[in-house]
Amino acid sequence: MKQVLVNLKDNSYPIYIGQGILDDLGSLLSKDKLSSKCAIITNPTVNKLYGKKVKDGLESKGIKTVILEVPDSETSKSLKYAGKLYVKLLENKLDRNSYIIALGGGVTGDLAGFVAATYLRGISLIQVPTTLLAQVDSAIGGKVAVDLPEGKNLIGAFYQPKLVLSDIKTLKTLPENELKSSLAEVIKYGIISDPDLFELLDKNLEKIKQQDQKILNEIVIKCSKIKASVVEEDEKEQGKRAILNLGHTLAHALESNTGYTRYSHGEAIAIGIIFAAKLSTKLNMLDINEFERIFGLIQSIGLPTKIKDDLEADKLLQTMQLDKKVKDGKIRMILLKRIGEVVIIDEIPMNLLKKELEKMLP
Amino acid sequence: MKQVLVNLKDNSYPIYIGQGILDDLGSLLSKDKLSSKCAIITNPTVNKLYGKKVKDGLESKGIKTVILEVPDSETSKSLKYAGKLYVKLLENKLDRNSYIIALGGGVTGDLAGFVAATYLRGISLIQVPTTLLAQVDSAIGGKVAVDLPEGKNLIGAFYQPKLVLSDIKTLKTLPENELKSSLAEVIKYGIISDPDLFELLDKNLEKIKQQDQKILNEIVIKCSKIKASVVEEDEKEQGKRAILNLGHTLAHALESNTGYTRYSHGEAIAIGIIFAAKLSTKLNMLDINEFERIFGLIQSIGLPTKIKDDLEADKLLQTMQLDKKVKDGKIRMILLKRIGEVVIIDEIPMNLLKKELEKMLP
Repeated sequence: MKQVLVNLKDNSYPIYIGQGILDDLGSLLSKDKLSSKCAIITNPTVNKLYGKKVKDGLESKGIKTVILEVPDSETSKSLKYAGKLYVKLLENKLDRNSYIIALGGGVTGDLAGFVAATYLRGISLIQVPTTLLAQVDSAIGGKVAVDLPEGKNLIGAFYQPKLVLSDIKTLKTLPENELKSSLAEVIKYGIISDPDLFELLDKNLEKIKQQDQKILNEIVIKCSKIKASVVEEDEKEQGKRAILNLGHTLAHALESNTGYTRYSHGEAIAIGIIFAAKLSTKLNMLDINEFERIFGLIQSIGLPTKIKDDLEADKLLQTMQLDKKVKDGKIRMILLKRIGEVVIIDEIPMNLLKKELEKMLP
Repeated sequence: MKQVLVNLKDNSYPIYIGQGILDDLGSLLSKDKLSSKCAIITNPTVNKLYGKKVKDGLESKGIKTVILEVPDSETSKSLKYAGKLYVKLLENKLDRNSYIIALGGGVTGDLAGFVAATYLRGISLIQVPTTLLAQVDSAIGGKVAVDLPEGKNLIGAFYQPKLVLSDIKTLKTLPENELKSSLAEVIKYGIISDPDLFELLDKNLEKIKQQDQKILNEIVIKCSKIKASVVEEDEKEQGKRAILNLGHTLAHALESNTGYTRYSHGEAIAIGIIFAAKLSTKLNMLDINEFERIFGLIQSIGLPTKIKDDLEADKLLQTMQLDKKVKDGKIRMILLKRIGEVVIIDEIPMNLLKKELEKMLP
């Protein structure tokens, strides 16, 4: 079991990474000074696979555990479902010393995290991500949120977990599509700060597709370290942390304009990365050969490189302006200098954005 | 203008107290590094009295200001109204660098504060309390919340404002009932840590009822200092801060069991303080002469000392068990040793609580 520390003074916490370590959760938690009562928030699919296992493990350590299910789709990341969970937590008499375990992917983690951050003004949160996407990204760094119909993640908080546990073995049950989708976020890490990680992906794509545990383990460790170091520098996204949003501004607009049903988060990010890379090449910041490597890898994984729906560029840009990263109405883009280095740019002319965006449409 | 500092390291902020200082808000804010866009969240009554004045003052300093109204009752402290405000903030294109000004009493401050804490994962918050209750209590210390039908303040966060401005002049327009109600919270401060403040109230009750500005100013300064020092010691209510809840556990249960319409917050607290004082006397902790002084002052103010509705003691106790302060199902009470000193007690036998509570009923 590998341990990566996220160093945030009073809010520091460990990320545990390894194969089959789901069994160790009870021991890890009973060491902590947490109370003996918790709620596992999960979705029906993950519950069927790991719910009982985790619950039994906790109860064998004397931790009273209740499992609460939410649907496995972005639509459950809403104030409505948060409201339902609050009531269930009250019914089960969870108090300020109880804690919440988010068991599942990004949707579960974001929603359960938002509920933990706001229930009784905040109770402890444990992240147990079971998708590659959540293990390398959303479970680390304390961003929790629900969506509004107007856009993704518009309501939320910065609320760090007490512990993250990433069991690589849970990735075995990950459907092929979800694995592909998660790789978009991994490519992102490579592009923003680690050419070796990009190389690792490029060289081992077949093994990764076959869910080679050793390589996945290496990927999760590398990504966790990158994410931890960016978050340590800028916990509340006032500066450098914005680089983690490479591809995300367009991705969020795409997802929101198609009702969160047409693109997985990873697919949307893949399109967003291609858009950012194209803009960067257009602005003479990124060499065409680097663009080619990125495009090639995304295509080889089987992720989309274009928008598949007949959407209006203006409408997408309007949604992008609603994004949290927007400052004084200007769309903030993360652009590429090379694989391993990005820059934050606020001043891209609207007409250039529109022109390039139109080229991404069918 | 008097300044009291709340010292919380990175989250420190000043409280400005004085007569007619509402006019200075624009100057105070334009000194800060906040952006030039804000939303004032207020209620129709306060808006009519001060909305335009504050807006004009801000806009004269180049701060773009929108006013958003919420109803002036506890029912607006809900996820539903928070949801409505989020949408209005989006419509008005408030971004992460914008800020929210809570202009009004405790309900407005709690709701606006919760919205500020969660909109785009948190934007800056300015508290401008216009009731005595809010000036001495809810605007200071960062507790923000909305209610659930199951209980008060069950959803919320600890989210400190950037600045608090208490204009004593706004208390002139405070209805007599609200002034009375606010005094319950002031008595609480006297009981928990300042016999002189209790004495000041006792001796100047007539002047206070006539809203003597000089004495009110003194009261707000004294209370702000007490609140600041308790919060500095225990920002997130993990220990000492609980003493601020003297009278509150029963008060919340009373309010929630009567749909937040039969008792003002202050009336409920007055009853809660009497209950705590009676229990303390019963347990031989508080001298009967001290009880008499407290009872006498509350009665002289015209605040209730008994529950006026035919409620069930069991039902009230059940709601008290849902309170956030509850640990492992035990009701936590703040009890009195003397005026100026209280203790936190978790172990009061249920049957004693019930017996004494029944005596408070009609």
